[in-house]
Amino acid sequence: MKDYFLNVSQEVWDKAANIKLLITDVDGVLTDGGIIYDDNQLEYKRFQVKDGQIIRYLQENGIKVGAITGRDSLVVRNRCEELRFDFHLHGAKLKYDLFFDQIGKMGLSVKECAYIGDDIIDLPILMNVGLSAAPADAMVYVRDKVDFVSSFNGGFGAFREVADVILQSQGKLRGIVEDLSVKRFGK
Amino acid sequence: MKDYFLNVSQEVWDKAANIKLLITDVDGVLTDGGIIYDDNQLEYKRFQVKDGQIIRYLQENGIKVGAITGRDSLVVRNRCEELRFDFHLHGAKLKYDLFFDQIGKMGLSVKECAYIGDDIIDLPILMNVGLSAAPADAMVYVRDKVDFVSSFNGGFGAFREVADVILQSQGKLRGIVEDLSVKRFGK
Amino acid sequence: MKDYFLNVSQEVWDKAANIKLLITDVDGVLTDGGIIYDDNQLEYKRFQVKDGQIIRYLQENGIKVGAITGRDSLVVRNRCEELRFDFHLHGAKLKYDLFFDQIGKMGLSVKECAYIGDDIIDLPILMNVGLSAAPADAMVYVRDKVDFVSSFNGGFGAFREVADVILQSQGKLRGIVEDLSVKRFGK
Amino acid sequence: MKDYFLNVSQEVWDKAANIKLLITDVDGVLTDGGIIYDDNQLEYKRFQVKDGQIIRYLQENGIKVGAITGRDSLVVRNRCEELRFDFHLHGAKLKYDLFFDQIGKMGLSVKECAYIGDDIIDLPILMNVGLSAAPADAMVYVRDKVDFVSSFNGGFGAFREVADVILQSQGKLRGIVEDLSVKRFGK
Repeated sequence: MKDYFLNVSQEVWDKAANIKLLITDVDGVLTDGGIIYDDNQLEYKRFQVKDGQIIRYLQENGIKVGAITGRDSLVVRNRCEELRFDFHLHGAKLKYDLFFDQIGKMGLSVKECAYIGDDIIDLPILMNVGLSAAPADAMVYVRDKVDFVSSFNGGFGAFREVADVILQSQGKLRGIVEDLSVKRFGK
Repeated sequence: MKDYFLNVSQEVWDKAANIKLLITDVDGVLTDGGIIYDDNQLEYKRFQVKDGQIIRYLQENGIKVGAITGRDSLVVRNRCEELRFDFHLHGAKLKYDLFFDQIGKMGLSVKECAYIGDDIIDLPILMNVGLSAAPADAMVYVRDKVDFVSSFNGGFGAFREVADVILQSQGKLRGIVEDLSVKRFGK
Repeated sequence: MKDYFLNVSQEVWDKAANIKLLITDVDGVLTDGGIIYDDNQLEYKRFQVKDGQIIRYLQENGIKVGAITGRDSLVVRNRCEELRFDFHLHGAKLKYDLFFDQIGKMGLSVKECAYIGDDIIDLPILMNVGLSAAPADAMVYVRDKVDFVSSFNGGFGAFREVADVILQSQGKLRGIVEDLSVKRFGK
Repeated sequence: MKDYFLNVSQEVWDKAANIKLLITDVDGVLTDGGIIYDDNQLEYKRFQVKDGQIIRYLQENGIKVGAITGRDSLVVRNRCEELRFDFHLHGAKLKYDLFFDQIGKMGLSVKECAYIGDDIIDLPILMNVGLSAAPADAMVYVRDKVDFVSSFNGGFGAFREVADVILQSQGKLRGIVEDLSVKRFGK
């Protein structure tokens, strides 16, 4: 199944094979960076169904999922709850402190963590995790420093691709796809 | 009129000629996979007018139209009602069971059904229907397994193109277009 | 200034020079065809500021502006009012009847009218007006039948480009741009 | 770090080095020109998180930030407040008068001001400031007249790129990025 992932280097496959926790930034990764406002200061964000579809497969295969975001909004909290993220931390001024506390509580090393981010505020975490990734439309000086740049933009499947790479590196994705493809019925 | 559809193989034309029911997934096919949330947990989705415009031509030409979706939301139920889908089934954990029941009730064989889907949850149906299709931006391992990959993304005309191919394979699209083009008036 | 419009043929320039009324379809021309719904059946549409900016220049130069749409929604009525369209007709089952009545009332011939449309319902008007146009992402069998296909998609400047071509064909656009460019002040 | 900005000419670097105030148009620069309306005439706009992330770095480095817009909407006023713009002027019929008054009050010369705009209403300011810029999808006859055309569309990072160029021309961007990249922790 590796043929679907020609943009993934061997080094990334090796790093992905160790991951037990996938953490993501929200704006610019789970969304395309757009924030919609109305006249009443209500806030709207656009998420991607494809990203949500893979969460349960990650968790069923022993990979936990979390979010750390510099902003704090109800809309993001609600989305993280709906997707049953294992944790989600909001309004982080210093994201790496929260990150470090969190993985400590979970008994994980930085090498067991993957992180997806798109902007400079994400650099302190990205420079330290076992697998660092960015959407195709992340800031150029962030893309330059990560292990893996997704073929997809934020909000258009970047998270899903990283999740797929992790699952596939651990030998799980092909099985999921094949199981769903073999059912035959009717005539 | 086939010249408009250079990306369609003879095998697809042959399969499309048998179709009496076109079923579609919703998120990622009728939409681009985006789900917009606001601070109050209200949900918003963006549909495509071009998809809606072809429904009545399908139905007038004996092709029924339905939707099967893994999620359940008022916004999708309302859209399906507005478009006068012949049926729409929501919150499907196992889509192919619902699919199989439904076509049984309608007295149709799987070969008479087309299905458009974009993600792994759609594979069990896609692997069995008479004509399987996916939007241009469907997951790569879904695109790999379908008869026809649309030139258009979900929410940007993928459904319409599949509908057009079915109508044209049955010799109906050219007539619709020409009838609307020959009217002359004024000076 | 013609250099900005390399995609415009001499035939289109000649036809545009006669236009006294520019009529547009709404969905797929003033928008990208997207219709957003929420859980409460409220409808949302996304228009383009660039389209609105040119209306007053058209009107100041003797070109009237109207809309004819097959759907009927408050959101479109409000947008047409805000943009001060000379008329806007909604819920048209047979668009060309409304069109013909309207230009009759205004004492205009079909050769003096331009129309922008993107789908088959627009064909009866497009086949008869003095200048027919379509957005870059109009249905292929509509694009094939119009005088001018915009370089821009619906909702991303298709209307603006047609308006610019009409103004420029009548020798007005360069003057507008140059007048706004020559002001010098401060140091 | 200049390698990230291969589309920037030496002339632009030189002009950017003098900038003490960055002013932006709103529609088409901070947004992609889309205005969303609902049935109740409420207005919605989509901004870009990446644009907002750089504001405090500009201000911490002595560059003030303002907005001048021809429209007047609560949604834009709220966004400018949230981003802590140094000033924001709305409903400007004659933008350059407001601009000239404002920089007078601030004791700045036009050479110390950068302005980003996308349409003809912006030309009077663009033709006079020390550094003029436009998004990649600005009107072609505006792009033709500015010092710098961003690689990014409005609402997708055009403002951010201009801000980055100004910071980098003054020797500040590399330091910001490197400071955030050197933190090491855990194992």
